[in-house]
Amino acid sequence: MAGTNRKLAKTKSEAVAAAGKTPAIILIEPQLGENIGMVARAMLNCGLSDLRLVRPRDGWPNKQAVGTASGADIVLENAKLFETTEAAIGDLKFVYAATARDRDITKEVVTPAQNAMEIRRLGGEGCGILFGSEAMGLNNDDIALTSKIVMVPLNPGFTSLNLSQAVLLLAYEWFKLADETPASELRMKDSRPADKAELLGLFEHLESELDSHGFLRIKEKRPVMVQNIRNVFQRADMTEQEVRTFRGIIKSLTKFPKKED
Amino acid sequence: MAGTNRKLAKTKSEAVAAAGKTPAIILIEPQLGENIGMVARAMLNCGLSDLRLVRPRDGWPNKQAVGTASGADIVLENAKLFETTEAAIGDLKFVYAATARDRDITKEVVTPAQNAMEIRRLGGEGCGILFGSEAMGLNNDDIALTSKIVMVPLNPGFTSLNLSQAVLLLAYEWFKLADETPASELRMKDSRPADKAELLGLFEHLESELDSHGFLRIKEKRPVMVQNIRNVFQRADMTEQEVRTFRGIIKSLTKFPKKED
Repeated sequence: MAGTNRKLAKTKSEAVAAAGKTPAIILIEPQLGENIGMVARAMLNCGLSDLRLVRPRDGWPNKQAVGTASGADIVLENAKLFETTEAAIGDLKFVYAATARDRDITKEVVTPAQNAMEIRRLGGEGCGILFGSEAMGLNNDDIALTSKIVMVPLNPGFTSLNLSQAVLLLAYEWFKLADETPASELRMKDSRPADKAELLGLFEHLESELDSHGFLRIKEKRPVMVQNIRNVFQRADMTEQEVRTFRGIIKSLTKFPKKED
Repeated sequence: MAGTNRKLAKTKSEAVAAAGKTPAIILIEPQLGENIGMVARAMLNCGLSDLRLVRPRDGWPNKQAVGTASGADIVLENAKLFETTEAAIGDLKFVYAATARDRDITKEVVTPAQNAMEIRRLGGEGCGILFGSEAMGLNNDDIALTSKIVMVPLNPGFTSLNLSQAVLLLAYEWFKLADETPASELRMKDSRPADKAELLGLFEHLESELDSHGFLRIKEKRPVMVQNIRNVFQRADMTEQEVRTFRGIIKSLTKFPKKED
Protein backbone atom coordinates (compact mmCIF):
# COMPACT_ATOMS: atom_id res chain seq x y z
CA MET A 1 0.00 0.00 0.00
CA ALA A 2 2.77 2.45 0.94
CA GLY A 3 4.53 4.08 -1.93
CA THR A 4 1.52 4.69 -4.13
CA ASN A 5 1.46 8.45 -3.61
CA ARG A 6 3.73 9.42 -6.47
CA LYS A 7 1.57 7.31 -8.74
CA LEU A 8 -1.61 8.76 -7.28
CA ALA A 9 -3.76 11.04 -9.39
CA LYS A 10 -1.59 13.41 -11.38
CA THR A 11 -4.76 14.82 -12.92
CA LYS A 12 -8.37 15.02 -11.82
CA SER A 13 -9.43 12.33 -14.26
CA GLU A 14 -6.79 10.00 -12.91
CA ALA A 15 -7.99 10.76 -9.40
CA VAL A 16 -11.38 9.47 -10.40
CA ALA A 17 -9.94 6.49 -12.22
CA ALA A 18 -8.56 5.41 -8.86
CA ALA A 19 -12.13 4.97 -7.56
CA GLY A 20 -13.07 1.47 -6.49
CA LYS A 21 -9.81 1.08 -4.61
CA THR A 22 -10.65 4.04 -2.38
CA PRO A 23 -13.23 4.13 0.38
CA ALA A 24 -16.66 5.63 -0.31
CA ILE A 25 -17.90 8.66 1.59
CA ILE A 26 -21.63 8.35 2.28
CA LEU A 27 -23.54 11.43 3.48
CA ILE A 28 -26.92 10.66 5.07
CA GLU A 29 -29.45 13.50 4.69
CA PRO A 30 -26.90 16.28 4.25
CA GLN A 31 -28.59 19.67 4.62
CA LEU A 32 -26.44 22.37 3.02
CA GLY A 33 -25.24 22.16 -0.57
CA GLU A 34 -22.27 24.27 0.53
CA ASN A 35 -21.20 21.47 2.84
CA ILE A 36 -21.59 18.81 0.13
CA GLY A 37 -19.32 20.90 -2.12
CA MET A 38 -16.73 21.30 0.62
CA VAL A 39 -16.86 17.56 1.27
CA ALA A 40 -16.17 16.94 -2.45
CA ARG A 41 -13.22 19.34 -2.30
CA ALA A 42 -11.76 17.71 0.82
CA MET A 43 -12.22 14.25 -0.74
CA LEU A 44 -10.40 15.13 -3.96
CA ASN A 45 -7.65 16.86 -1.94
CA CYS A 46 -6.97 13.43 -0.48
CA GLY A 47 -7.51 11.36 -3.64
CA LEU A 48 -11.04 10.16 -2.82
CA SER A 49 -13.84 10.33 -5.38
CA ASP A 50 -16.64 7.91 -4.48
CA LEU A 51 -19.28 10.22 -2.99
CA ARG A 52 -22.75 8.83 -2.20
CA LEU A 53 -25.70 10.93 -1.07
CA VAL A 54 -28.73 9.59 0.77
CA ARG A 55 -31.79 11.89 0.65
CA PRO A 56 -29.96 15.26 0.47
CA ARG A 57 -32.41 17.82 1.94
CA ASP A 58 -32.37 20.26 -0.97
CA GLY A 59 -32.36 17.69 -3.77
CA TRP A 60 -29.63 16.86 -6.23
CA PRO A 61 -27.82 18.30 -8.18
CA ASN A 62 -27.35 21.39 -6.04
CA LYS A 63 -25.84 24.66 -7.33
CA GLN A 64 -24.47 25.70 -3.93
CA ALA A 65 -22.35 22.56 -3.89
CA VAL A 66 -20.61 23.49 -7.14
CA GLY A 67 -19.54 26.86 -5.72
CA THR A 68 -17.82 25.49 -2.64
CA ALA A 69 -16.32 22.47 -4.42
CA SER A 70 -13.79 24.95 -5.87
CA GLY A 71 -13.03 22.78 -8.88
CA ALA A 72 -13.72 19.33 -7.46
CA ASP A 73 -16.66 19.14 -9.88
CA ILE A 74 -15.72 15.66 -11.00
CA VAL A 75 -16.59 14.31 -7.55
CA LEU A 76 -19.98 16.03 -7.61
CA GLU A 77 -20.72 14.89 -11.17
CA ASN A 78 -20.01 11.28 -10.25
CA ALA A 79 -21.85 11.43 -6.93
CA LYS A 80 -24.52 8.73 -6.63
CA LEU A 81 -27.94 9.41 -5.17
CA PHE A 82 -29.80 6.90 -2.97
CA GLU A 83 -33.14 6.72 -1.20
CA THR A 84 -31.92 4.56 1.68
CA THR A 85 -28.70 3.91 3.58
CA GLU A 86 -29.15 0.20 2.87
CA ALA A 87 -29.12 0.85 -0.90
CA ALA A 88 -26.11 3.18 -0.62
CA ILE A 89 -23.94 0.57 1.12
CA GLY A 90 -25.20 -2.64 -0.51
CA ASP A 91 -21.95 -3.25 -2.44
CA LEU A 92 -19.68 -2.41 0.50
CA LYS A 93 -18.12 -4.91 2.89
CA PHE A 94 -16.67 -2.79 5.68
CA VAL A 95 -18.60 0.28 6.74
CA TYR A 96 -17.71 2.69 9.54
CA ALA A 97 -20.01 5.20 11.21
CA ALA A 98 -18.46 8.63 11.83
CA THR A 99 -19.98 10.07 14.99
CA ALA A 100 -19.15 13.12 17.05
CA ARG A 101 -20.41 11.97 20.44
CA ASP A 102 -20.63 8.88 22.58
CA ARG A 103 -23.62 6.70 21.76
CA ASP A 104 -25.62 4.35 23.90
CA ILE A 105 -24.34 1.50 21.75
CA THR A 106 -21.85 -1.27 22.37
CA LYS A 107 -19.45 -1.01 19.47
CA GLU A 108 -15.77 -0.69 18.76
CA VAL A 109 -14.71 2.97 18.51
CA VAL A 110 -11.56 3.82 16.56
CA THR A 111 -9.61 7.01 15.88
CA PRO A 112 -9.31 8.41 12.32
CA ALA A 113 -5.69 7.19 12.17
CA GLN A 114 -6.75 3.66 13.15
CA ASN A 115 -9.67 3.79 10.70
CA ALA A 116 -7.27 4.76 7.91
CA MET A 117 -4.91 1.92 8.79
CA GLU A 118 -7.72 -0.61 8.79
CA ILE A 119 -9.09 0.57 5.43
CA ARG A 120 -5.58 0.45 3.91
CA ARG A 121 -5.16 -3.08 5.26
CA LEU A 122 -8.46 -4.06 3.61
CA GLY A 123 -7.22 -2.57 0.32
CA GLY A 124 -9.66 0.35 0.26
CA GLU A 125 -12.11 -1.48 -1.99
CA GLY A 126 -15.48 -2.25 -0.51
CA CYS A 127 -14.94 0.16 2.37
CA GLY A 128 -17.07 3.16 3.25
CA ILE A 129 -17.70 5.73 5.95
CA LEU A 130 -21.16 7.04 6.87
CA PHE A 131 -21.61 10.66 7.97
CA GLY A 132 -24.90 11.94 9.40
CA SER A 133 -26.63 15.27 8.81
CA GLU A 134 -25.14 18.51 10.08
CA ALA A 135 -27.83 18.95 12.74
CA MET A 136 -28.46 15.41 13.93
CA GLY A 137 -25.55 13.17 13.04
CA LEU A 138 -26.28 9.51 12.38
CA ASN A 139 -29.26 7.76 13.89
CA ASN A 140 -28.83 4.46 15.71
CA ASP A 141 -30.51 2.45 12.91
CA ASP A 142 -27.80 3.61 10.51
CA ILE A 143 -25.07 2.93 13.06
CA ALA A 144 -26.43 -0.62 13.43
CA LEU A 145 -25.57 -1.16 9.74
CA THR A 146 -21.88 -0.50 10.40
CA SER A 147 -19.02 -2.56 11.80
CA LYS A 148 -17.35 0.14 13.86
CA ILE A 149 -17.59 3.75 14.93
CA VAL A 150 -14.88 6.24 14.03
CA MET A 151 -14.74 9.28 16.29
CA VAL A 152 -12.37 12.25 15.99
CA PRO A 153 -10.70 13.03 19.32
CA LEU A 154 -11.13 16.78 19.91
CA ASN A 155 -10.96 19.43 22.61
CA PRO A 156 -13.60 18.10 25.03
CA GLY A 157 -14.73 21.69 25.61
CA PHE A 158 -15.64 22.18 21.93
CA THR A 159 -16.27 19.13 19.79
CA SER A 160 -18.61 20.62 17.18
CA LEU A 161 -16.87 19.78 13.92
CA ASN A 162 -18.16 20.93 10.53
CA LEU A 163 -19.21 18.04 8.25
CA SER A 164 -16.55 18.76 5.64
CA GLN A 165 -13.91 19.15 8.36
CA ALA A 166 -14.77 15.69 9.67
CA VAL A 167 -14.55 14.19 6.17
CA LEU A 168 -11.23 15.98 5.62
CA LEU A 169 -9.62 14.62 8.78
CA LEU A 170 -10.57 11.03 7.93
CA ALA A 171 -9.61 11.40 4.27
CA TYR A 172 -6.30 13.02 5.19
CA GLU A 173 -5.37 10.20 7.55
CA TRP A 174 -6.15 7.77 4.71
CA PHE A 175 -4.07 9.78 2.22
CA LYS A 176 -1.12 10.18 4.58
CA LEU A 177 -0.60 6.43 4.92
CA ALA A 178 0.39 6.13 1.25
CA ASP A 179 2.18 9.47 1.08
CA GLU A 180 5.94 9.47 0.74
CA THR A 181 6.63 13.14 1.45
CA PRO A 182 9.64 13.29 3.79
CA ALA A 183 8.79 14.72 7.22
CA SER A 184 11.44 17.38 6.70
CA GLU A 185 13.39 18.35 3.61
CA LEU A 186 15.60 21.28 2.57
CA ARG A 187 14.24 22.44 -0.78
CA MET A 188 16.41 24.66 -2.92
CA LYS A 189 15.86 26.26 -6.28
CA ASP A 190 18.56 26.94 -8.88
CA SER A 191 21.36 26.08 -6.50
CA ARG A 192 22.88 23.26 -4.50
CA PRO A 193 24.10 22.90 -0.91
CA ALA A 194 27.49 24.60 -0.41
CA ASP A 195 30.32 22.16 0.10
CA LYS A 196 32.59 22.51 3.09
CA ALA A 197 35.43 24.03 1.03
CA GLU A 198 33.09 26.86 -0.07
CA LEU A 199 31.87 27.34 3.49
CA LEU A 200 35.46 27.40 4.81
CA GLY A 201 36.27 30.00 2.17
CA LEU A 202 33.51 32.18 3.63
CA PHE A 203 34.65 31.57 7.22
CA GLU A 204 38.26 32.46 6.44
CA HIS A 205 37.28 35.52 4.44
CA LEU A 206 35.11 36.80 7.29
CA GLU A 207 37.62 35.93 10.03
CA SER A 208 40.51 37.60 8.21
CA GLU A 209 38.46 40.79 7.85
CA LEU A 210 37.42 40.57 11.51
CA ASP A 211 41.10 40.18 12.42
CA SER A 212 42.05 43.25 10.37
CA HIS A 213 39.23 45.28 11.94
CA GLY A 214 40.22 44.26 15.46
CA PHE A 215 36.96 42.37 16.26
CA LEU A 216 38.92 39.21 17.27
CA ARG A 217 41.75 41.03 19.00
CA ILE A 218 41.45 39.32 22.44
CA LYS A 219 43.62 36.30 21.77
CA GLU A 220 42.26 33.92 24.42
CA LYS A 221 38.66 34.57 23.31
CA ARG A 222 39.35 34.24 19.60
CA PRO A 223 38.88 30.42 19.27
CA VAL A 224 35.45 30.40 20.99
CA MET A 225 34.24 33.45 19.06
CA VAL A 226 35.29 31.86 15.79
CA GLN A 227 33.47 28.64 16.72
CA ASN A 228 30.29 30.52 17.61
CA ILE A 229 30.28 32.49 14.39
CA ARG A 230 30.96 29.37 12.32
CA ASN A 231 28.14 27.50 14.08
CA VAL A 232 25.59 30.16 13.12
CA PHE A 233 26.47 29.71 9.45
CA GLN A 234 26.50 25.90 9.77
CA ARG A 235 22.97 25.92 11.18
CA ALA A 236 21.78 27.91 8.18
CA ASP A 237 22.55 25.04 5.73
CA MET A 238 23.70 27.57 3.11
CA THR A 239 23.62 27.01 -0.64
CA GLU A 240 26.58 27.68 -2.89
CA GLN A 241 24.76 30.82 -4.17
CA GLU A 242 24.19 32.08 -0.63
CA VAL A 243 27.88 31.62 0.26
CA ARG A 244 28.77 33.78 -2.75
CA THR A 245 26.21 36.40 -1.66
CA PHE A 246 27.71 36.55 1.84
CA ARG A 247 31.22 36.89 0.48
CA GLY A 248 29.89 39.80 -1.58
CA ILE A 249 28.40 41.29 1.60
CA ILE A 250 31.76 41.11 3.41
CA LYS A 251 33.50 42.68 0.43
CA SER A 252 30.87 45.43 0.22
CA LEU A 253 31.16 46.28 3.94
CA THR A 254 34.97 46.33 3.93
CA LYS A 255 36.11 47.51 0.51
CA PHE A 256 33.63 50.13 -0.62
CA PRO A 257 33.28 53.54 1.01
CA LYS A 258 29.98 54.28 2.73
CA LYS A 259 27.74 56.38 0.52
CA GLU A 260 26.57 59.57 2.21
CA ASP A 261 23.14 60.77 1.21
CA MET B 1 3.81 16.98 26.72
CA ALA B 2 1.97 13.71 26.27
CA GLY B 3 -0.84 13.10 28.66
CA THR B 4 -2.16 16.63 28.87
CA ASN B 5 -5.29 15.91 26.85
CA ARG B 6 -7.53 14.89 29.73
CA LYS B 7 -6.58 18.08 31.48
CA LEU B 8 -7.09 20.12 28.32
CA ALA B 9 -9.94 22.57 28.16
CA LYS B 10 -13.02 21.06 29.74
CA THR B 11 -14.81 24.33 29.04
CA LYS B 12 -14.38 27.11 26.53
CA SER B 13 -12.95 29.45 29.15
CA GLU B 14 -10.37 26.86 30.12
CA ALA B 15 -9.53 26.41 26.46
CA VAL B 16 -8.61 30.06 26.35
CA ALA B 17 -6.76 29.92 29.63
CA ALA B 18 -4.42 27.45 27.93
CA ALA B 19 -3.28 30.22 25.55
CA GLY B 20 0.39 31.13 25.72
CA LYS B 21 1.36 27.47 25.77
CA THR B 22 -0.29 26.89 22.41
CA PRO B 23 0.94 28.08 19.03
CA ALA B 24 -0.56 31.23 17.50
CA ILE B 25 -2.42 31.12 14.20
CA ILE B 26 -1.69 34.25 12.16
CA LEU B 27 -3.85 35.02 9.13
CA ILE B 28 -2.32 37.53 6.70
CA GLU B 29 -4.92 39.55 4.74
CA PRO B 30 -7.75 37.01 5.08
CA GLN B 31 -10.55 37.88 2.67
CA LEU B 32 -13.78 36.20 3.78
CA GLY B 33 -15.19 36.61 7.26
CA GLU B 34 -16.75 33.15 6.82
CA ASN B 35 -13.27 31.67 6.57
CA ILE B 36 -12.04 33.52 9.65
CA GLY B 37 -14.99 32.07 11.57
CA MET B 38 -14.28 28.57 10.34
CA VAL B 39 -10.62 28.99 11.28
CA ALA B 40 -11.71 29.96 14.83
CA ARG B 41 -13.94 26.88 15.01
CA ALA B 42 -11.18 24.55 13.78
CA MET B 43 -8.73 26.11 16.25
CA LEU B 44 -10.99 25.64 19.27
CA ASN B 45 -11.79 22.07 18.13
CA CYS B 46 -8.11 21.40 18.64
CA GLY B 47 -7.58 23.47 21.78
CA LEU B 48 -5.97 26.50 20.11
CA SER B 49 -7.12 30.02 20.89
CA ASP B 50 -4.42 32.55 19.94
CA LEU B 51 -5.74 34.00 16.66
CA ARG B 52 -3.99 37.01 15.09
CA LEU B 53 -5.27 38.89 12.05
CA VAL B 54 -3.12 41.08 9.81
CA ARG B 55 -5.11 43.53 7.65
CA PRO B 56 -8.31 41.47 7.22
CA ARG B 57 -9.85 42.69 3.93
CA ASP B 58 -13.32 43.46 5.30
CA GLY B 59 -12.21 44.99 8.61
CA TRP B 60 -12.64 43.66 12.10
CA PRO B 61 -14.86 42.60 13.87
CA ASN B 62 -16.76 40.84 11.08
CA LYS B 63 -20.34 39.52 11.44
CA GLN B 64 -19.85 36.74 8.88
CA ALA B 65 -17.10 35.28 11.03
CA VAL B 66 -19.43 34.90 14.03
CA GLY B 67 -21.90 32.84 11.99
CA THR B 68 -19.41 30.26 10.78
CA ALA B 69 -17.53 30.08 14.10
CA SER B 70 -20.49 27.99 15.35
CA GLY B 71 -19.88 28.87 18.97
CA ALA B 72 -16.13 29.43 18.93
CA ASP B 73 -16.87 33.10 19.69
CA ILE B 74 -14.27 33.22 22.41
CA VAL B 75 -11.52 32.81 19.83
CA LEU B 76 -12.95 35.64 17.70
CA GLU B 77 -13.42 37.91 20.72
CA ASN B 78 -9.81 37.45 21.76
CA ALA B 79 -8.41 37.73 18.22
CA LYS B 80 -5.74 40.40 17.94
CA LEU B 81 -5.56 42.81 15.02
CA PHE B 82 -2.28 43.96 13.45
CA GLU B 83 -1.20 46.28 10.67
CA THR B 84 1.93 44.34 9.74
CA THR B 85 3.18 40.76 9.86
CA GLU B 86 6.24 42.01 11.76
CA ALA B 87 4.04 43.41 14.54
CA ALA B 88 1.93 40.23 14.66
CA ILE B 89 4.92 37.96 15.27
CA GLY B 90 7.17 40.24 17.33
CA ASP B 91 6.75 38.20 20.54
CA LEU B 92 7.17 34.84 18.82
CA LYS B 93 10.38 32.83 18.57
CA PHE B 94 9.61 30.07 16.08
CA VAL B 95 7.38 30.92 13.15
CA TYR B 96 6.38 28.61 10.32
CA ALA B 97 4.94 29.63 6.94
CA ALA B 98 2.05 27.47 5.72
CA THR B 99 2.18 27.34 1.93
CA ALA B 100 0.29 25.28 -0.61
CA ARG B 101 2.82 25.20 -3.40
CA ASP B 102 6.55 25.01 -4.00
CA ARG B 103 8.29 28.37 -3.72
CA ASP B 104 11.41 29.67 -5.36
CA ILE B 105 13.00 29.82 -1.93
CA THR B 106 15.66 27.74 -0.22
CA LYS B 107 14.07 26.69 3.05
CA GLU B 108 13.30 23.61 5.06
CA VAL B 109 9.85 22.22 4.26
CA VAL B 110 8.11 20.05 6.85
CA THR B 111 4.86 18.09 6.96
CA PRO B 112 2.05 19.05 9.38
CA ALA B 113 2.92 16.03 11.56
CA GLN B 114 6.58 17.12 11.74
CA ASN B 115 5.53 20.72 12.40
CA ALA B 116 3.34 19.54 15.28
CA MET B 117 6.18 17.49 16.75
CA GLU B 118 8.58 20.41 16.57
CA ILE B 119 6.12 22.82 18.19
CA ARG B 120 5.41 20.30 20.97
CA ARG B 121 9.15 19.92 21.49
CA LEU B 122 9.47 23.70 21.81
CA GLY B 123 6.67 23.71 24.37
CA GLY B 124 4.11 25.48 22.18
CA GLU B 125 4.92 28.86 23.70
CA GLY B 126 6.39 31.44 21.36
CA CYS B 127 5.44 29.41 18.29
CA GLY B 128 3.22 30.51 15.45
CA ILE B 129 2.09 29.59 11.96
CA LEU B 130 1.48 32.15 9.20
CA PHE B 131 -1.30 31.58 6.66
CA GLY B 132 -1.70 33.75 3.55
CA SER B 133 -4.88 35.06 1.93
CA GLU B 134 -7.32 32.70 0.22
CA ALA B 135 -6.43 33.97 -3.25
CA MET B 136 -2.71 34.60 -3.04
CA GLY B 137 -1.21 32.67 -0.15
CA LEU B 138 1.83 34.15 1.55
CA ASN B 139 4.19 36.48 -0.24
CA ASN B 140 7.92 35.87 -0.18
CA ASP B 141 8.59 38.81 2.18
CA ASP B 142 6.40 37.17 4.80
CA ILE B 143 8.00 33.78 4.19
CA ALA B 144 11.42 35.40 4.76
CA LEU B 145 10.27 36.21 8.32
CA THR B 146 9.81 32.50 9.12
CA SER B 147 12.15 29.66 10.05
CA LYS B 148 10.52 26.91 8.02
CA ILE B 149 7.75 26.15 5.59
CA VAL B 150 4.98 23.70 6.47
CA MET B 151 3.22 22.19 3.46
CA VAL B 152 0.31 19.73 3.53
CA PRO B 153 0.97 16.75 1.24
CA LEU B 154 -2.13 16.36 -0.93
CA ASN B 155 -3.37 14.69 -4.11
CA PRO B 156 -1.00 16.27 -6.68
CA GLY B 157 -3.95 16.51 -9.07
CA PHE B 158 -5.93 18.75 -6.71
CA THR B 159 -4.07 20.65 -4.03
CA SER B 160 -6.44 23.60 -3.52
CA LEU B 161 -7.16 23.49 0.20
CA ASN B 162 -9.61 25.86 1.90
CA LEU B 163 -7.95 28.18 4.47
CA SER B 164 -9.85 26.73 7.42
CA GLN B 165 -9.14 23.19 6.22
CA ALA B 166 -5.42 23.96 6.19
CA VAL B 167 -5.58 25.41 9.71
CA LEU B 168 -7.59 22.37 10.86
CA LEU B 169 -5.06 19.84 9.56
CA LEU B 170 -2.15 21.58 11.29
CA ALA B 171 -4.11 22.15 14.50
CA TYR B 172 -5.32 18.55 14.53
CA GLU B 173 -1.80 17.17 14.20
CA TRP B 174 -0.81 19.39 17.12
CA PHE B 175 -3.78 18.22 19.20
CA LYS B 176 -3.26 14.55 18.41
CA LEU B 177 0.25 14.50 19.90
CA ALA B 178 -1.11 15.13 23.39
CA ASP B 179 -4.27 13.10 22.94
CA GLU B 180 -4.58 9.84 24.84
CA THR B 181 -7.60 8.37 23.07
CA PRO B 182 -6.87 4.69 22.43
CA ALA B 183 -6.62 3.85 18.71
CA SER B 184 -9.36 1.27 19.19
CA GLU B 185 -11.66 0.62 22.12
CA LEU B 186 -14.84 -1.37 22.71
CA ARG B 187 -17.28 1.03 24.35
CA MET B 188 -20.29 -0.40 26.11
CA LYS B 189 -23.15 1.22 27.94
CA ASP B 190 -25.00 -0.24 30.93
CA SER B 191 -23.31 -3.61 30.57
CA ARG B 192 -19.97 -5.37 30.76
CA PRO B 193 -18.16 -7.88 28.54
CA ALA B 194 -19.61 -11.38 28.90
CA ASP B 195 -17.33 -13.78 30.71
CA LYS B 196 -16.44 -17.09 29.12
CA ALA B 197 -18.83 -19.06 31.38
CA GLU B 198 -21.75 -16.94 30.12
CA LEU B 199 -20.60 -17.35 26.53
CA LEU B 200 -20.24 -21.13 27.00
CA GLY B 201 -23.77 -21.20 28.40
CA LEU B 202 -24.97 -19.61 25.16
CA PHE B 203 -22.93 -22.01 23.01
CA GLU B 204 -24.21 -25.09 24.82
CA HIS B 205 -27.79 -23.85 24.78
CA LEU B 206 -27.61 -23.25 21.01
CA GLU B 207 -25.77 -26.49 20.25
CA SER B 208 -28.17 -28.62 22.27
CA GLU B 209 -31.10 -27.10 20.39
CA LEU B 210 -29.30 -27.62 17.07
CA ASP B 211 -28.69 -31.25 18.07
CA SER B 212 -32.41 -31.73 18.89
CA HIS B 213 -33.44 -30.14 15.60
CA GLY B 214 -31.04 -32.30 13.58
CA PHE B 215 -28.88 -29.40 12.31
CA LEU B 216 -25.67 -31.09 13.61
CA ARG B 217 -26.67 -34.63 12.70
CA ILE B 218 -23.63 -35.47 10.46
CA LYS B 219 -21.30 -36.69 13.17
CA GLU B 220 -17.94 -36.19 11.42
CA LYS B 221 -18.85 -32.58 10.49
CA ARG B 222 -20.17 -31.63 13.93
CA PRO B 223 -16.86 -30.50 15.55
CA VAL B 224 -15.96 -28.12 12.72
CA MET B 225 -19.48 -26.69 12.51
CA VAL B 226 -19.50 -26.08 16.24
CA GLN B 227 -16.11 -24.33 16.02
CA ASN B 228 -17.30 -22.10 13.17
CA ILE B 229 -20.46 -21.06 14.97
CA ARG B 230 -18.56 -20.38 18.20
CA ASN B 231 -16.00 -18.27 16.33
CA VAL B 232 -18.71 -15.99 14.93
CA PHE B 233 -19.92 -15.21 18.44
CA GLN B 234 -16.36 -14.81 19.73
CA ARG B 235 -15.61 -12.19 17.07
CA ALA B 236 -18.65 -10.20 18.18
CA ASP B 237 -17.16 -9.47 21.64
CA MET B 238 -20.60 -9.82 23.22
CA THR B 239 -21.71 -8.15 26.44
CA GLU B 240 -23.42 -10.02 29.26
CA GLN B 241 -26.71 -8.35 28.22
CA GLU B 242 -26.29 -9.46 24.61
CA VAL B 243 -25.67 -13.06 25.67
CA ARG B 244 -28.95 -12.97 27.59
CA THR B 245 -30.73 -11.51 24.55
CA PHE B 246 -29.42 -14.28 22.31
CA ARG B 247 -30.47 -16.97 24.78
CA GLY B 248 -33.93 -15.39 24.68
CA ILE B 249 -33.82 -15.56 20.88
CA ILE B 250 -33.02 -19.30 20.94
CA LYS B 251 -35.80 -19.88 23.46
CA SER B 252 -38.24 -17.87 21.37
CA LEU B 253 -37.41 -19.77 18.18
CA THR B 254 -37.63 -23.20 19.79
CA LYS B 255 -40.18 -23.04 22.59
CA PHE B 256 -42.96 -20.77 21.38
CA PRO B 257 -45.30 -21.65 18.52
CA LYS B 258 -45.11 -19.47 15.41
CA LYS B 259 -47.85 -16.87 15.41
CA GLU B 260 -50.00 -17.03 12.29
CA ASP B 261 -51.45 -13.73 11.14
